[in-house]
This record gives sequence, C-alpha cells and structure tokens, in this order.
Amino acid sequence: MSSQPEHPTLLIPGPIEFDDAVLHSMSHYSESHVGPGFVSTFGDVLAALRRLFQTTDPASQPFVISGSGTLGWDLVAANLVEAGEAALVLGTGYFSDGFADCLRVYGADVTELKAPVGSRPQLAEIEAALKTRAYKLLTVTHVDTSTGVLSELRALSELVHRVSPDTLVIVDGVCSVACEEIAFDAWGLDGVVTASQKAIGVPAGLSISMFSGRAIQTLERRKTPPAAYFASLKNWLPIMRNYEAKKPSYFATPSPQLVHALDTALKQILSAPLAERFAKHKAASDKIKAAVTKLGLKQVAANPDDQAHGMTAIYLPESIQISQILPRLSSKNIVFAGGIHKEIATKYIRFGHMGVSILNPERGDIDRALKALEAGLAECGYQKA
Amino acid sequence: MSSQPEHPTLLIPGPIEFDDAVLHSMSHYSESHVGPGFVSTFGDVLAALRRLFQTTDPASQPFVISGSGTLGWDLVAANLVEAGEAALVLGTGYFSDGFADCLRVYGADVTELKAPVGSRPQLAEIEAALKTRAYKLLTVTHVDTSTGVLSELRALSELVHRVSPDTLVIVDGVCSVACEEIAFDAWGLDGVVTASQKAIGVPAGLSISMFSGRAIQTLERRKTPPAAYFASLKNWLPIMRNYEAKKPSYFATPSPQLVHALDTALKQILSAPLAERFAKHKAASDKIKAAVTKLGLKQVAANPDDQAHGMTAIYLPESIQISQILPRLSSKNIVFAGGIHKEIATKYIRFGHMGVSILNPERGDIDRALKALEAGLAECGYQKA
Repeated sequence: MSSQPEHPTLLIPGPIEFDDAVLHSMSHYSESHVGPGFVSTFGDVLAALRRLFQTTDPASQPFVISGSGTLGWDLVAANLVEAGEAALVLGTGYFSDGFADCLRVYGADVTELKAPVGSRPQLAEIEAALKTRAYKLLTVTHVDTSTGVLSELRALSELVHRVSPDTLVIVDGVCSVACEEIAFDAWGLDGVVTASQKAIGVPAGLSISMFSGRAIQTLERRKTPPAAYFASLKNWLPIMRNYEAKKPSYFATPSPQLVHALDTALKQILSAPLAERFAKHKAASDKIKAAVTKLGLKQVAANPDDQAHGMTAIYLPESIQISQILPRLSSKNIVFAGGIHKEIATKYIRFGHMGVSILNPERGDIDRALKALEAGLAECGYQKA
Repeated sequence: MSSQPEHPTLLIPGPIEFDDAVLHSMSHYSESHVGPGFVSTFGDVLAALRRLFQTTDPASQPFVISGSGTLGWDLVAANLVEAGEAALVLGTGYFSDGFADCLRVYGADVTELKAPVGSRPQLAEIEAALKTRAYKLLTVTHVDTSTGVLSELRALSELVHRVSPDTLVIVDGVCSVACEEIAFDAWGLDGVVTASQKAIGVPAGLSISMFSGRAIQTLERRKTPPAAYFASLKNWLPIMRNYEAKKPSYFATPSPQLVHALDTALKQILSAPLAERFAKHKAASDKIKAAVTKLGLKQVAANPDDQAHGMTAIYLPESIQISQILPRLSSKNIVFAGGIHKEIATKYIRFGHMGVSILNPERGDIDRALKALEAGLAECGYQKA
C-alpha cells in the first residue's frame, strides 16, 4: 500500500508515479549544500550514476544540475560545439527539433536529417551525411517523447566511429535512461543528457548527464569560452569532481531535497541487475503494444523495431478527438498525455509506462490503464473495425 | 512542535530551516505539469509573486524556472543586454563579481564599480559613472551574501532614472526577497532575480524573477535573438502568461513538487502584512548585531546603514580560525557558514537569520545560536578585549 493520498494514476511519458520512499526523501530536513552530510550524499549519487550509465572509465564525468531536462541541450550546445562548427541532428520529432534549435542559438551550423513522422533516419542516410562534411558532433534522441520512436544507439555509434571518428556521439536520453539499455563505455558514447522525472522516477527539477573523457577534452580545448554561464560545464566540472571526492565546493546552490530523492531512487534502481529492469520494461511494453493492436489501433512508431519500451504513442480512431478520450480516461482515474508532434498533434495520445508502474505490478496501473482505454473508447462510440 | 526529525539548526544565508507545511508540500503526489490541478497552482504562484514584489502593473512579468539562483543572472545577461552593449555592475563582493562574469559570457561590455570590502559604491560615484556612457543596464546586489552588505535600492533607482533614464535597473535579490522590503513599482525597478531557498523558505531548485514592462519590451525589441536557450525569456514568456491564465503550456517541464512548496510558502508569507515581516527581520537583526558587538566582534559590513537584515557576516578574533569555531558551533547543533569573499574568506563567518527562525521565535533558534557563538568562542580561548 502506498502512503500517498488517493490520486489519478499518472501514466504520461514523464513525470511518472513515485515510489513512496523516493517521495519521502523530498521532505528531508534542511541541510547546508556544503556540509559533510549532503556532500557525502551528492558524492554517492554521482558514483551511482556511473553504474546506471554503465561506465567504469574514470575519465567519464557525471553532472547533476538544478534545471529541467531541456537544460541538457544547453550543456551540449554551449560547451561541446563552438560557433560555426557543424552539428548533425537526427530528426525524429518535436524533441530533436528542440535540440537543433538549441544548438543554433549557440551558433552551431546545424544540419537536420529528418525522418518521416513515426520513423527515424536510417544508417545508410546517416553514413552518407557523415561523409559530406566534418561534423563536430551528432545528436540522436534515444526515445523521441513526441512519437515513441526508439533509436538504435549501438549500431549508430559504431557507424559514427567508423566513418567520422572525430565526431562526438551525443544522446538525448530524457525518455530512455533507466528504462532502455545504455552501455556508455561499450557503445562508445560521448554524452547522454537526461532528467530526473522520467524512468529514473524522481520529481522534475534535475538535469542529469554523463560525458566521456573525449567530450571533457573537447570542453577543455575550446578556442572560445563556453557560451553560457549557468550551463557552463567548465564552471560545474570542478564542483562535480569535488562532490564525488566528498569535498565541499560551490558554484551555484544545488537542491538537497531533489538530490536526496535521486539518491534513494538510484539505490533502488541499482539494487537489482539493470538488465532485469530493462527486460521488465520491455515485457510490459510488449504487452501494452499487443493490447493496443488488439484494440485495432495503430502506433505512431510504425516499425516494431523502432518502438520505445517506456511509452506508447497511439493514433486515435478518426472519429474520436483527444478532447473526448482524455476526460473519459480521467474519469477512470487514468492520466494519459495528448499529442505534441506538430504535424499530428490532434491525432494521437501518449501512454507512459515507466518506473514503479512497471516494476510494482501489484499496483495494477497498467491493467487499469488498458481497461480504461478500452472502456473509454467504447464510451466514445468506437467499435473495432 | 516540528514534525521534522531532530537535526542541527541551519543558520547559513540559505538554504534556511523549513516550515513543516512547506516541506510537506515537497512530497505532493505526482501530477501532470499540464494538468488542470497543477496549472492552477502554478497560476496562483505567479499571481502571489506579484504581491510579494509589490507590483500591480499588469505589464510586470513573473517567471519561475527550475534552476539555481545563479540562473537569474543568465536570464538578465542573455535577454536584456546584447553583445557589445554596456552594463554597469555595482561591486559589493563575490556575488556582484559573479553577475559581472555572467554578463561578460554573453558579450556585455561590463564596467564594475567596485567598493572596498564591506562597503558599497556611493551614489556620487554611481552618478559620475552613469554620466560617462550610455549603460543598457545597471545591476545591484541588494544583499551581497558574501559580505552582508545591504544596498539602498530606492535612492539608487531614483538616481538612475534621473541621470540615465534609459538604463534598466536590475536587482540581484537572492538574499533579500522576502526579508528586505522591495517595492517593485514604487521604486521603478526593472528586474529582480532571486531563488527559492533563502528568505522565501522553499528548498533550493527554483529561479524566481520579476521583470518590468520596460524590461519585457527590451526583450521583445532585441536586434539579435536571446543568447541562451533554456535561459531564454522569449521561450518562457508565453508559458508564464499561459500558466497565470490557467491554460496548459509547455516549453520545459517545471518541478510540480517545488512549485507546490512555493505555493504553500507564498500563502504563508502573504497571510500577514509584508511590512510586519520585514520589521520582524529587522528587529531580530538588530538584536543579533547588538549581541555580536557586545561580544567585541566586528562585522564585515562596517557601516550600520549598510547592514543586511537577513544575515550577519562576522569577523573572527585574530586568534581563532574558521576550522576551530564552526565545529564548536556544530557540536552545539548550530550550523553557520564560512567566508566566501576571496580577499577575506578565512577571516569571517556568516550567520543567516531568515524565515521561520525569525518568524517563529518559540523555536529559540536565534537565542541558541547566540549562546552557542559565545560559548564556542570561549572554548576557543577568546576573551573579549
């Protein structure tokens, strides 16, 4: 039984439902951000992130900074690319467009390789693009939260290293870290930026990232200073190194309460093999996608190999509006999200299935959501063709 | 009685001790950041901020963004000044230096008018400086947390409007909002940036700011786009307007838990006249400063008129090191902060006295702190000269 008051079950692609202990950590009594207790906790969190991202290379560097997930784009754009340098953005939807916009703000010369809605750029096109010029970095949205399209990181990273070995491989992992496998070292990634409120299961408010030794060298060898101040990795680098060495350090005040919640969540995540966690998300996702298909509905991510395991973007039957179905679900205490991809926003809904809703099946969240979806569609007059 | 577990009393100049109800709001169950419940709460928070800053001008615009207080400097530097334009920074210590650094990162041509340690630039020098060139904006650190020096905003703003009417008056109010009076409209301010974890009494993690209609016009009339992405006020402006109109809107995910805590804190703050709140902080500050003087100790802020009311920076007797006195205080369950101003960092300590420690005198925080300071100094061998 949860100690939280009864409330609608939040099944959007982040924020997600919280574990009681994680939520309880949010009300930790006040501590100094440079006192030994909090410094030790923050150090533990940074060390735990290395395990979550599967990196043992001591040159890798985790960062935890107060902000939304979006701040992660600024960390990349203001620090790892300089004005006029080329960036290749793999276009999968709303969120890759946002990353491209952010890169442009800081002066990168951005090429977007856009895939049709519901798919992702293919390796052959990416290889061709990489051969046309020297890209400083490539960005890929691991799961584009606007479409539920999953990108394949391992083969992509291998391709980049083979065809354009100086190009940094940067992953937007906001909707993938802690529910999709990410093997930072083994796959040769240079940066993964994410946020606290999706599969990690902590309230929103933290930008969480991991950068490779090569990315940190790129930062240190810049010809110009980082193009932002709060988002300057140069300002944060000594702070993160000190916290991990359990030494007090100050650039800007972190949020002890959110960091405590992250500490609790990471301890829970790392108490079981990560492979098991990913497998559970995959199994639940398979079940959800089968149920959606059985209802006669199509997914935005058309190809089964490209479908994310922590969310499902579902096209509505043509006769049904978002403004009809979401209130029906809400009356059954289930909260889904509307569409966000501008080309199809009014035509689909998004179902997030990450964290405790998957790992604690005794909550019954997924079964209740699927039943509510079926009943809600029927109430809207939908009959399977 | 507090429902929080026993813990050392945190009396640093932020974060501060939390009220139980505020802290309890941090463990609010998960909600959609675009759902009607949260949107309504966020709207209430923005409206309440207008009252806290004492602005009724509908052109004024509040912003609440996930981040540290430092992000407020980026909001000013990336949005209200363009590359090559002149900014005048009133130099009062570590934090005005930081603001100057941030402005330079985004290309402002910064002049720092530095005062000697423990004081602030005087109006006559500021007037002379304003006459030398056309400054796009002037920044003043209302309370420099590194020295406890309080700047006088009303006369300063009047001077700027008289001598250089096109110059925006920007206030770093991180250590002053909610403990020092700020009359945004009456004093003709153009921007005040602050954070959640000081006198507002909410856990760290929110950048909170108010900008005037004139500042928003400056933003809208930029010749170049804002120089940051996450810190772009252009990206946030429609979002804040929508939230206040209780309409869902999305740029980057806010932190519902921190916003709930801010909602609770603002309701408490606004339940009594603000003048009463400021008077209580002043009375407690006067008592603390008298006790410090009685102990034979000097303050970093030398002139009584320049002394902040939410913190006191105290020079240690020459024979006593920070590494001796802070552990003594800690053993008495009192946490003070060390020095941070680089010219004098090893020579002084900082005592924060804001929020519940002042407003709930039955907690006894201040009396215990003063007793611990006296006893701790005696244990270190100090005898009043």
